[in-house]
Amino acid sequence: MVYGVVLASGVGKRMGADIPKQYIEIAGKPIIIYTIEAMLDVEKIDKIYIAVSGPYISYMKELLEKYFDEAQQGKMVIVEGGNERIDTINNVVDCILESYETEKSDVIIFHDAVRPFVTRKILEDSVSGAVEFGATVAGLPAVDTMLCSNDGKRVDEIPDRATIFHGQAPDTFRLEYFIELRNKLSDDQKKRLTGTSQFCTFNNKPIYLIEGDPLNFKITSVEDLRRAEMIVNERKEKEVI
Amino acid sequence: MVYGVVLASGVGKRMGADIPKQYIEIAGKPIIIYTIEAMLDVEKIDKIYIAVSGPYISYMKELLEKYFDEAQQGKMVIVEGGNERIDTINNVVDCILESYETEKSDVIIFHDAVRPFVTRKILEDSVSGAVEFGATVAGLPAVDTMLCSNDGKRVDEIPDRATIFHGQAPDTFRLEYFIELRNKLSDDQKKRLTGTSQFCTFNNKPIYLIEGDPLNFKITSVEDLRRAEMIVNERKEKEVI
Repeated sequence: MVYGVVLASGVGKRMGADIPKQYIEIAGKPIIIYTIEAMLDVEKIDKIYIAVSGPYISYMKELLEKYFDEAQQGKMVIVEGGNERIDTINNVVDCILESYETEKSDVIIFHDAVRPFVTRKILEDSVSGAVEFGATVAGLPAVDTMLCSNDGKRVDEIPDRATIFHGQAPDTFRLEYFIELRNKLSDDQKKRLTGTSQFCTFNNKPIYLIEGDPLNFKITSVEDLRRAEMIVNERKEKEVI
Repeated sequence: MVYGVVLASGVGKRMGADIPKQYIEIAGKPIIIYTIEAMLDVEKIDKIYIAVSGPYISYMKELLEKYFDEAQQGKMVIVEGGNERIDTINNVVDCILESYETEKSDVIIFHDAVRPFVTRKILEDSVSGAVEFGATVAGLPAVDTMLCSNDGKRVDEIPDRATIFHGQAPDTFRLEYFIELRNKLSDDQKKRLTGTSQFCTFNNKPIYLIEGDPLNFKITSVEDLRRAEMIVNERKEKEVI
């Protein structure tokens, strides 16, 4: 089985909106719906777990009913997110384990709710990469020269730009391997987690790059939102033609 | 003296245009004119050297006559760019040295023609930083998690994001120090130069960060161009109000 996970339990209300940003609408439809649609579009993905903070669970249910038919809804599971990233991940994994026996070939894809334009290629490459390597992350080659500075004042190193990548999402793992990595994390490491890539790095295990896409950007600012609107409007124009 | 340098000798014709991108118009005015205006706006900057490739010299002259008054034009010098970055830099520095005696307090600011929205703060901080530290570069804290991979496949390191900065421009130096660094570069190093920051790093000399600005982005894509148009249009609206 391939389990898609949409991490949507953040409640940051930036960009002047009254709702967390994954619920802000682009061209009349919430960002998270585009993200779920992108996952639905990939046949390999059998189930889509949507991790949502408690107060938004009923709202999320309404959204799923509004935007998806029954067959599509049958693929989706809403899970309550936790206080910390690790709690959310645990809730999702536990929920999977309660419903299914794990198999060697199982894969879990962790994606950000606010990266709605993830491409089919990224999702498919992530799954096949995870099967081959155990763990993958989508990365995009850096365009700018990057400067390393430990104190934020003096530049210690200007690495070869070709060796630097922007980490996007998803992070994708063979499920059994992911559980193994999770079980090895110390309590301190669990507290310090900011992303699922660290399940590898904290365990000194490799994670492999799959090719990201500029379209797969994270919507965090008003400017990002405008860009997202332009993308959706252009797609609509193309559909009309 | 403080010498501003606008590096505009690139002839890359991307973005479907027939002219190098620094000459593309935003709201009816070429990008490079905005960049020169930003430098003019900083009183500390005494002279503005504009490095242009041979075939564009007369066009550049016309642009300066069109957009600037005589007093402003009096501050500006057009210099022919060379084939390689190092040649362009040499031409500019030689041109300065032909006209002026250097002084300990002289500063040289190398800026990209296609970063038209460089702020006054960045330019002023660059000058005072160069006086204090010898060499500065504008850097913007990374927003994304950055991944280091030597082979582009396996992630070798995920550095603490707080230690990673996007290198912007300008690069700014005490002029005498810059000439000293230049004279120490080997021929091989000169060939490998892609930016002026490397005058420091190739010599194992430190370069210091000054705070960049998201506005100070490089226009390299059609999307950047749209963003630039939005910024200019918003500024015009504010002026009207």
